[in-house]
Amino acid sequence: MDNLLIIKIGGNIIDDSQKLSQFLKNFSLFKENKILVHGGGKLATDLAKQLSIPQQMIEGRRVTDAETLKVITMVYAGYINKNIVAQLQSNNCNAVGLSGADGNLIPAHKRPIKKIDYGFVGDIDNINAKWLMQLLHENITPVIAPVAHDNKGQLLNTNADTIAREIAKNLSAHFDVTLIFCFGKIGVLQNEEDESSVIPEITPSYFKELKQQQIIHSGMLPKLDNAFAALNAGVKKIVIGKAEELSKLISGTSGTVITNG
Amino acid sequence: MDNLLIIKIGGNIIDDSQKLSQFLKNFSLFKENKILVHGGGKLATDLAKQLSIPQQMIEGRRVTDAETLKVITMVYAGYINKNIVAQLQSNNCNAVGLSGADGNLIPAHKRPIKKIDYGFVGDIDNINAKWLMQLLHENITPVIAPVAHDNKGQLLNTNADTIAREIAKNLSAHFDVTLIFCFGKIGVLQNEEDESSVIPEITPSYFKELKQQQIIHSGMLPKLDNAFAALNAGVKKIVIGKAEELSKLISGTSGTVITNG
Repeated sequence: MDNLLIIKIGGNIIDDSQKLSQFLKNFSLFKENKILVHGGGKLATDLAKQLSIPQQMIEGRRVTDAETLKVITMVYAGYINKNIVAQLQSNNCNAVGLSGADGNLIPAHKRPIKKIDYGFVGDIDNINAKWLMQLLHENITPVIAPVAHDNKGQLLNTNADTIAREIAKNLSAHFDVTLIFCFGKIGVLQNEEDESSVIPEITPSYFKELKQQQIIHSGMLPKLDNAFAALNAGVKKIVIGKAEELSKLISGTSGTVITNG
Repeated sequence: MDNLLIIKIGGNIIDDSQKLSQFLKNFSLFKENKILVHGGGKLATDLAKQLSIPQQMIEGRRVTDAETLKVITMVYAGYINKNIVAQLQSNNCNAVGLSGADGNLIPAHKRPIKKIDYGFVGDIDNINAKWLMQLLHENITPVIAPVAHDNKGQLLNTNADTIAREIAKNLSAHFDVTLIFCFGKIGVLQNEEDESSVIPEITPSYFKELKQQQIIHSGMLPKLDNAFAALNAGVKKIVIGKAEELSKLISGTSGTVITNG
């Protein structure tokens, strides 16, 4: 099977134009099949503030009312997505920016209200893998904004980590997929204060141990649950690390590798 | 040759959600090859106002500084484009929303400064007709936002009428192209105050006459110059009329047909 690299980047790189530009240069140098999934960052929060739209975060997730969805669609699917695509084009990487509505890429449904009403937040039903494969076959690099749709005309704010994971799972039948989650740190750390304490590899049994010792907690937990779920669904390799280290993350000499051992 | 319908819609339909929704239903019913090009409308002006970004219009064109370009990218390529695509998907029309950076669809250059500095405004170099044909071949309907790029990473605000015309010209070698410009009136009118005075057909010699009599002036002049330029470049049929009358514009029973006679 051919290789496929799926990379998710978030606010820490998107919010820093110099770092983003360097990352996109390095990303463009990787000549095999690749997909970029991006999150948002503080631009959406800043715009909501300027427009006096109150923002509410619950357990790290943005509660998305109609006005907030508008901001997210403008910032994520518009400003960030198109600027990334334009930069990739300037690096001779033929990219196309997509929301989940485009080509019916990510059908989803509005999250049911249980304890919390998240508003216009989407839970993914499916990935249009066939179309992604068609684009990759044409040597086009998809750049995906974290906005899905419900097939009834409604856009839905959707978590970028989840989108990256679902795409990786769905394409694992057709490619050897390496999934890289970029975040602010060099990898999963033994000691949060010490960048040299990166854990090179986490297996399921070691993950259990790290949780028991409370070395891994809060924000890192869903990231790793996400990673193991993808691994169990056929993704070949998962790496968590820093976007600035992209080539090392790909070669496996930086970041934390999540593996079934 | 197969038929291809290219339709340009502007603010008068985009700004009215009910009219837009009905238009998109009618557009989806047309089962042949089709492309939608949309402009902006007052949403961008409203957002710029809310963000205290001063707006300057010269001869009907928006002067585009960096902050205004950001607004345009958010509103045109983000909010409007993705909401149109989501609605089309709900009508079983498999659409993909594109800026000119996506798939290198519209390479352009920043308009040179002569008397006026329009800022980040693009003049089109080319249309990636091959990719549009590929999408149409896959039964995907392109929905195009009026934003081009310069292949150096810079997005550029670009006139939607011009984009529609250039796409029509470039695809005329491969399709029998009908190009429909939708605007606020039922067609080109003999008497601007009288909606029943629509001119059913304009030939080059009649156009000359209408200009001399000053029946056609100001805003209508570039629209018609645009139309004749497209006609002379091989576009088969051009109609100017009201988006609400779409099926009649297609069948030729509403609007003004521009023809070489």
